[in-house]
Amino acid sequence: MNNNLITAGFLIIGNEILSGRTPDQNLNFLAKNLAEMGIVLREVRVIGDFEDEIIENVKHLKSKYNYVFTSGGIGPTHDDITTSCIAKAFNQELILHPLANEILIKHYGSENINEARLKMAYLPVNAELLDNPVSSAPGFRLENVFVMAGVPKIFQAMFVASSKELVRGQKIYSREIKFKLTESSIAHDLTKLQQEYPDVAMGSYPFEGGTSLVFRSINLNQVNIAINKMIDLIKILNPNENIEIS
Amino acid sequence: MNNNLITAGFLIIGNEILSGRTPDQNLNFLAKNLAEMGIVLREVRVIGDFEDEIIENVKHLKSKYNYVFTSGGIGPTHDDITTSCIAKAFNQELILHPLANEILIKHYGSENINEARLKMAYLPVNAELLDNPVSSAPGFRLENVFVMAGVPKIFQAMFVASSKELVRGQKIYSREIKFKLTESSIAHDLTKLQQEYPDVAMGSYPFEGGTSLVFRSINLNQVNIAINKMIDLIKILNPNENIEIS
Repeated sequence: MNNNLITAGFLIIGNEILSGRTPDQNLNFLAKNLAEMGIVLREVRVIGDFEDEIIENVKHLKSKYNYVFTSGGIGPTHDDITTSCIAKAFNQELILHPLANEILIKHYGSENINEARLKMAYLPVNAELLDNPVSSAPGFRLENVFVMAGVPKIFQAMFVASSKELVRGQKIYSREIKFKLTESSIAHDLTKLQQEYPDVAMGSYPFEGGTSLVFRSINLNQVNIAINKMIDLIKILNPNENIEIS
Repeated sequence: MNNNLITAGFLIIGNEILSGRTPDQNLNFLAKNLAEMGIVLREVRVIGDFEDEIIENVKHLKSKYNYVFTSGGIGPTHDDITTSCIAKAFNQELILHPLANEILIKHYGSENINEARLKMAYLPVNAELLDNPVSSAPGFRLENVFVMAGVPKIFQAMFVASSKELVRGQKIYSREIKFKLTESSIAHDLTKLQQEYPDVAMGSYPFEGGTSLVFRSINLNQVNIAINKMIDLIKILNPNENIEIS
């Protein structure tokens, strides 16, 4: 629906999501925020803490989308292998990053820097640190990949920092209507309307007690025209339908 | 950690997850239930309603894992394309499935069967319907792929139906300890312990105010020995630490 789409992929790294121990809390946050910025999240992958898989997925996603975000695996323990995998995906060495090191020393005190803490200050050669007002965890940007923490509060702070650097796409306008008719009652009219307005992406989502239709496009006028036509069609099917518009 | 691992992949299909409109509610449910059955969820992907992408991802995941679950896109509207994509991924035709058709007629009444409703009864030739006590939506199994609805309540009912057919793996035992010391304080001891017990997967997860360690293995005895050693190590670092064990 747009030749100048700006796209993104999201790689969630962590056994704890796949084992069910931790429910993911970052996907919906990222999706909503990117949509606000006109950046289209095209794909999300959740994988475990395995070096080969992380490297392979980072390589794939960074070549496919304008931006890639990763979450998880940048802490000080043995299972935090994201940073070294990112370095390998870019064929870069890990070096002691002066600013990351300075932040760690300020946070822990120079007398308390141990091997595990120091590990966090080793970043790929060309990494640029992301601002992180919440903790000393070193999120960073390397080319089009933003490497962020898995803890939601830190992930969110890092996203705010990275979002300043992102090229915005065209805003995607979205309107929704909810009503009691079932999906299968309105499917025929909806299909015809979708053919009439190919630039408006029309999604239909059943819920208990009714149907929600979401119309999305970079052209707000088209969204409004199409949704008003749909409202008329619903009223023909059921004149008493109480349509909730948002 | 086990040569006889039974593995699974999960493909979430739906623009509404990627746009942020709908938070996913199925991943954590599936992850927890598979873990209970000793089936290891190795990968999750979230993609939009695009035919090529659905086909490509289904082909990839079904050849890589013992089981694949999909959610979303099996309803009556134009954006519900999962079933036809599954057929294409398996090089099978869609045919009017007698049992699916019968269920639809019973649900809507034969006089109310329209084109959109009938569409839902067309399934790949070798598809076996999944029991669905919640709605008339036709979830199905085709070889190692379980095609299920996106609506959480229906997804869950279909999973319960499909789970009767799944080969269980060895149960994975999991124990967790929580304490106030930071990850970077215990990282050194934890790395050494991981080397000593390679069959126990040790994960470290920071949270506000402390650290959670999760030890997982098919060998409960090893989990218990390792976690008790870790508790002793933590008490050496901080004799007053209040360790929460679960």
